Amino acid sequence: MFSGQIHSEQVFPYPSVLNEDQSQFLSELVGPVSRFFEEVNDPALNDSLHRVEDKTLAGLKEMGAFGLQVPTELGGLGLNNTQYARLVEIVGMHDMGVGITLGAHQSIGFKGILLFGTAEQKAKYLPRLASGETIAAFCLTEPTSGSDAASIRTAARKSPCGKYYTLSGGKIWISNGGIADVFTVFAKTPVQDPATGETREKVTAFIVERVEGVTHGPPEKKMGIRASNTAAVFFDEVRVPAENVLGGEGNGFKVAMNILNNGRFGMAAALSGTMKGMIQRAVEHATSRTQFGSKLHQFGIIQEKLARMAVLQYVTESMAYMISANMDSGHKDFQIEAAISKIFGSEAAWSVTDECIQILGGTGFMTDGGVERVLRDLRIFRIFEGTNDILRLFVSLQGMQSAGKELKSLQKALSNPLGNSSLLLREGMKRVRRKAGLSSGLSLKGQVHPELEKSGELAVAALEDFGGTVEEVLVKYGKRIVDEQFVLQRVADCAIDLYAMIVVLSRASRSLSQGLPASAHEKILCDIWCSEAQSRIHRNLQSLRSGGDGAALFRNLRSVSSALTENGGTVTQHPLGF
Amino acid sequence: MFSGQIHSEQVFPYPSVLNEDQSQFLSELVGPVSRFFEEVNDPALNDSLHRVEDKTLAGLKEMGAFGLQVPTELGGLGLNNTQYARLVEIVGMHDMGVGITLGAHQSIGFKGILLFGTAEQKAKYLPRLASGETIAAFCLTEPTSGSDAASIRTAARKSPCGKYYTLSGGKIWISNGGIADVFTVFAKTPVQDPATGETREKVTAFIVERVEGVTHGPPEKKMGIRASNTAAVFFDEVRVPAENVLGGEGNGFKVAMNILNNGRFGMAAALSGTMKGMIQRAVEHATSRTQFGSKLHQFGIIQEKLARMAVLQYVTESMAYMISANMDSGHKDFQIEAAISKIFGSEAAWSVTDECIQILGGTGFMTDGGVERVLRDLRIFRIFEGTNDILRLFVSLQGMQSAGKELKSLQKALSNPLGNSSLLLREGMKRVRRKAGLSSGLSLKGQVHPELEKSGELAVAALEDFGGTVEEVLVKYGKRIVDEQFVLQRVADCAIDLYAMIVVLSRASRSLSQGLPASAHEKILCDIWCSEAQSRIHRNLQSLRSGGDGAALFRNLRSVSSALTENGGTVTQHPLGF
Repeated sequence: MFSGQIHSEQVFPYPSVLNEDQSQFLSELVGPVSRFFEEVNDPALNDSLHRVEDKTLAGLKEMGAFGLQVPTELGGLGLNNTQYARLVEIVGMHDMGVGITLGAHQSIGFKGILLFGTAEQKAKYLPRLASGETIAAFCLTEPTSGSDAASIRTAARKSPCGKYYTLSGGKIWISNGGIADVFTVFAKTPVQDPATGETREKVTAFIVERVEGVTHGPPEKKMGIRASNTAAVFFDEVRVPAENVLGGEGNGFKVAMNILNNGRFGMAAALSGTMKGMIQRAVEHATSRTQFGSKLHQFGIIQEKLARMAVLQYVTESMAYMISANMDSGHKDFQIEAAISKIFGSEAAWSVTDECIQILGGTGFMTDGGVERVLRDLRIFRIFEGTNDILRLFVSLQGMQSAGKELKSLQKALSNPLGNSSLLLREGMKRVRRKAGLSSGLSLKGQVHPELEKSGELAVAALEDFGGTVEEVLVKYGKRIVDEQFVLQRVADCAIDLYAMIVVLSRASRSLSQGLPASAHEKILCDIWCSEAQSRIHRNLQSLRSGGDGAALFRNLRSVSSALTENGGTVTQHPLGF
Repeated sequence: MFSGQIHSEQVFPYPSVLNEDQSQFLSELVGPVSRFFEEVNDPALNDSLHRVEDKTLAGLKEMGAFGLQVPTELGGLGLNNTQYARLVEIVGMHDMGVGITLGAHQSIGFKGILLFGTAEQKAKYLPRLASGETIAAFCLTEPTSGSDAASIRTAARKSPCGKYYTLSGGKIWISNGGIADVFTVFAKTPVQDPATGETREKVTAFIVERVEGVTHGPPEKKMGIRASNTAAVFFDEVRVPAENVLGGEGNGFKVAMNILNNGRFGMAAALSGTMKGMIQRAVEHATSRTQFGSKLHQFGIIQEKLARMAVLQYVTESMAYMISANMDSGHKDFQIEAAISKIFGSEAAWSVTDECIQILGGTGFMTDGGVERVLRDLRIFRIFEGTNDILRLFVSLQGMQSAGKELKSLQKALSNPLGNSSLLLREGMKRVRRKAGLSSGLSLKGQVHPELEKSGELAVAALEDFGGTVEEVLVKYGKRIVDEQFVLQRVADCAIDLYAMIVVLSRASRSLSQGLPASAHEKILCDIWCSEAQSRIHRNLQSLRSGGDGAALFRNLRSVSSALTENGGTVTQHPLGF
């Protein structure tokens, strides 16, 4: 995408990965899980209790909800990512406090054991974790280390005998921190480089049980997801057996990033469920409430809100199941897409829920209305497991890295033109076409349904525009691009918009081809999205181009910010003078 | 503005209305009030208590905070709107729960007595209200009547002797409803039209004391402003003396709208204070927190957030004091501007606080951080005292009404061209110029400081573009414009952006002329705003023009919305099929 191309086999046609058995098994779970959340769980009560009610926890354990992806032979349900997403979506629709309790346990808490655990580690821990007898937590964040995960201070030293490590340090804001008995803990350890013999501090992941020296702070009071437990966890000279190293000594950073990357699609699925619930609430209100002699849904302002909510939900849902399917088909390159889905889903759900409140008016603000809790719950989704700001940098830098590599091979080719004539010819043509405002020959014809041709063309135009600007930006900044966050942020926004376009084009095309009853509706959702996204992309890219208005704006923004920081707050004199 | 013109005497130069005495008196209040909120009041405690702490209430009463605008001879501080705004700004900076308690009392609760009360009503009620001995509340909203205020069902019937009314009905979500002893209540009464002799149900405002038949519900649990009391108030055959009619029988709707219109500037001032506080918190964090080896404020993403926060605060503050000054100078046309300031301020404060949380990360989400409460408090500001959606319709319809009148006189002139040659010539020239893309001769030169010339030109261009499109829209839709909410919403957005441009141009020009130390900084804030606002306006207007992409988009949005309402929620089939 960052090179102005798409690898279409990963996105077209919209993937269907479940075989008949998997589909059957999943469909048999959907009903009971939905009913459980409608009839047994009480989200308002959980919120006010500041914990998940016992009968809910017991019911969830019985259904197998604590071990959805644990292999059946180890006591779990053995679901793949797509199946997991579908169930998590139901949880997200009803109670995000429960969602975080479950997610902190299996999406990050013991996911490291699933992904990197040895056979022994899996056999030892997974059965108790899958049944919910033992709860897990993921311990990365520290007071001085949030987004900058590599800077943690918790440290583990290997014993002279080599049989155990002594681990000390403090972690904060740990979901399930106060109720977990198994922790995935990240700590610095001295690791010897086999090549140079030099010893350096590197992050290592450990499976730590709640043994002597492990304590936790009181439950944190927070804006939302109050039903979930959040606490500091302290490790004071905790003895951890050497066989509890997870993923190898010194590989902890990779382990942490892999766990987080692997969990993000689930967040998008959950948030898609949240949005579905909010849309239903808003529609209920808009169709039953009368003002000025008409039902609310007859007013254009309400119609626009409802329609935009539906578009955002459609995009998020399409992303979540595209990515889970890609992961289930064994594609290894899903990290950027997963990050996009987390950013997009958390911002879309925020906006949808905020608009639901606006449609409900006073009822939306009252606790009894049941919607204000959802907005409170959602605020953390834009912050945790990688803030959306950091993830935007990740999306643009990771994406540009691959585009940069291609560009480098081109620059190399230029230094040996005779030996690389075909590459140069191809690239040359692309460039000439781009300069002339012509298409570079990229087309989605045959992949996008004919009824979506216009939106498909918008996506192709945006894609080429994007690829061209990324190239220009890379040539301009070179390696210094990593520090150009004004630019990186906009590149990420374009990438998000663009990926969303491609995903809905793919899904709506499949629906049209299959002749689904709502396929005409899907076409409209897709057209609304593509048309507006393409304009946004165009504007963002314009500002980044040489001669665009970005440079002046960035200079102004920087200047305002530095005046604020020098002044410790607002700088202007009050209009009254005091 | 809606005719593509500005009445510059109301906005240029940025007004200064306080005389030396008023300024002196106010400046002597600012210090103690600020200190009181820093040292005595505890917003977190109020929030958790679900009421304002007694010692805070006592202190506020002692300072005169319950009667800021009550004339001194009736026991108040006798402040004008500008002075009031300055103090309310301090309250908004520290504790919106307290702000609502005070505002529901004096900005709406007894504002009707101040604006419309007879000498007897004022003498009877204001002294006790000004001292805070008695608390007031504003009772308009009912279960079936929110935005549609004219549809209330509470009714009052005059006694045959004419000495009293019997009032019955139920009001909901009344701020101070559970603690007030004096209520401004709106009820339907049969009113005879003196011309036709016909009797019709019209709204009448009453001053109602807490006497037999007045009861209230339990305090509502809500997302924010928890320190303020919100309750249903019930009137069961309450006997109200005839002399307690406020503003005349049948004039209640006008009374209600006037009270609300008169209070909105204060909300903008309070929210400007809130934003100032949030910016300070964000800057403190950004200058003290280190990640990746740098302070947060050194990262472009954080810089952009801080800068945008400052711009939004600057615009809101500039609006609030522009409008309070206009009101204090006796201008009668401030309703549209006041509505704009309420819309803008409530959305700006929401965005600023949301970004403050994002900068603070986990700390922002935790109750101890003290910022999540502010976001919770702010959510209601976009809903109450006229939802921002209804106010947008008000802004565009009110504005277009006057533009429509001008247009009508033009259409009339066209039917008698010989008798109206000068008007036609003038209008004809304007139209020709507009069509040719030339300026219609409007200029802000001499009013905008030379250093702001470029931004001034953007404002003029936007203004003319706006006037032209409003005209085109009016010609196209005629009276049917009232039902075209997709259009009205965009017209309102343009009006808001445009008014904001003019206001900051005025303020920054004054600062530059006066050579204030931060005037260069103000110029940058103004330039950032004007450049982006002009682009937004341009895009919005483009979509409304014949041939613009609005028509297709509106059709699509309408179609999606109606599918949702028919279906009771999302329409698309799940990507997995179930």
